Amino acid sequence: MLSWVDGQPAELLSVKDRGLAYGDGLFETIAVSAGQPTLLERHLARLAQGCVQLKIPVELPVVRAQVLAFSQQLGEGVVKLILTRGEGLRGYAVTQPAKPRLILQASAKPAYPAAYAEQGVRLFPCVTRLAEQPLLAGLKHLNRLEQVLARSEWHDADHAEGVMLDTSGRVIEGVYSNLFMVRAGVLITADLARCGVAGVMRGELLAQAAALGIACQVRDISQAELLAADEVMLCNSVYGVWPARALLAHNWPVGPLTRKLQAIARNLLDC
Amino acid sequence: MLSWVDGQPAELLSVKDRGLAYGDGLFETIAVSAGQPTLLERHLARLAQGCVQLKIPVELPVVRAQVLAFSQQLGEGVVKLILTRGEGLRGYAVTQPAKPRLILQASAKPAYPAAYAEQGVRLFPCVTRLAEQPLLAGLKHLNRLEQVLARSEWHDADHAEGVMLDTSGRVIEGVYSNLFMVRAGVLITADLARCGVAGVMRGELLAQAAALGIACQVRDISQAELLAADEVMLCNSVYGVWPARALLAHNWPVGPLTRKLQAIARNLLDC
Repeated sequence: MLSWVDGQPAELLSVKDRGLAYGDGLFETIAVSAGQPTLLERHLARLAQGCVQLKIPVELPVVRAQVLAFSQQLGEGVVKLILTRGEGLRGYAVTQPAKPRLILQASAKPAYPAAYAEQGVRLFPCVTRLAEQPLLAGLKHLNRLEQVLARSEWHDADHAEGVMLDTSGRVIEGVYSNLFMVRAGVLITADLARCGVAGVMRGELLAQAAALGIACQVRDISQAELLAADEVMLCNSVYGVWPARALLAHNWPVGPLTRKLQAIARNLLDC
Repeated sequence: MLSWVDGQPAELLSVKDRGLAYGDGLFETIAVSAGQPTLLERHLARLAQGCVQLKIPVELPVVRAQVLAFSQQLGEGVVKLILTRGEGLRGYAVTQPAKPRLILQASAKPAYPAAYAEQGVRLFPCVTRLAEQPLLAGLKHLNRLEQVLARSEWHDADHAEGVMLDTSGRVIEGVYSNLFMVRAGVLITADLARCGVAGVMRGELLAQAAALGIACQVRDISQAELLAADEVMLCNSVYGVWPARALLAHNWPVGPLTRKLQAIARNLLDC
């Protein structure tokens, strides 16, 4: 599969890279259709925000140009973008000036069962909790052991996603998705000020829902509220929107707002 | 500098490695003197514990043999060992069977000023807090953005280390060291059940102190207790023990227990 390191075809990188040593970097997962990266400006904006927070110098025009050229070559699929702080000496201190490294990797679009989008998915109740770290909250950084542990909790095909709580018990997100719930016509998603990944599709759906006059709330969500919701859905940049239909013994119907946001995501992803 | 990947001289690694993608792996930093790795069995035991927790299959005899052979070639210096879960497809789910990857990198022993060990070091009060994640606490895993952020808080040579608190305000450790304090003859170090790295030198010093009949406590430490301590010291596997002499306007004397543990560490590290 197509793979570039700093704009050149390559499948290897230095073992001295701080991305490996410390997870010192960020990533984006971008759907590509007909040679075009979907929601590219939102992906770049989140990357830029992460670079500010981690103090990684980044030249966005260079990143944009590489992603566009890479996507053109790929045609259809998914681009995983990794931006690391680059190589380092031993030790946490950053070598100045840092020379960040941009890695682009292609993969095919995952072949999820059609039922996930149509009838919805069953959520696995993950025991792994998200630690509360405001300095890293929202960022799509490379420190993802919590997600690795959470995803290792189930192996059956019955569960397409898991739901993750923070260490205080608030409902935050899926393992590789953001979560929305609907209550009395209001679209609600978790506040990600303490933990979680501020997904690009989440951001786009919030913006489009607001533009359609749908009331939106970004706030803490309790487990009881989640169970009492009228509708629950998941979203990410690759599959768009999946209705959530069940968690343990509890079932949710697939409702009209879920279908509306699903249509918006389909339109964006051209799938 | 000497560098091996899976037992072969190599300085490059696949961009598909999960160590890069998610920080999905562990590391050890081992001092080498006269071709011998210091405290090797403690390093291997911690690595094994991390592998159990992260469900990474590891063949310890293979790791031991490689570290011994690598250290023999190195002679004098520091070995950084990285064990990752190996290559993966896109997504957090682990490809079965996982084929872990062992990376060994050599570097020279750092040339710290002699004053750090003799007169002691000034601690920087890090604003970056350690998030509380019991599932990862104690492990030397590759998710180290908190340490990267903490170490980026100071640039002056006046501060040799920083002190890190958890999000609840407890005193946990240095950025790249563990911390001990002495109060009324009792040696005290932080409980690492919620966060922090259970250092190999910390474990060895606790064992040797107990064997010498020194009362030891592993428990929560408040900021007030730290300031009120009779002695404060830092330790790691590379430099041994440094007295901590100051934090902001507060000064600690360099006391007898610090000197005793420093001598033990020097003996181990042969430095």
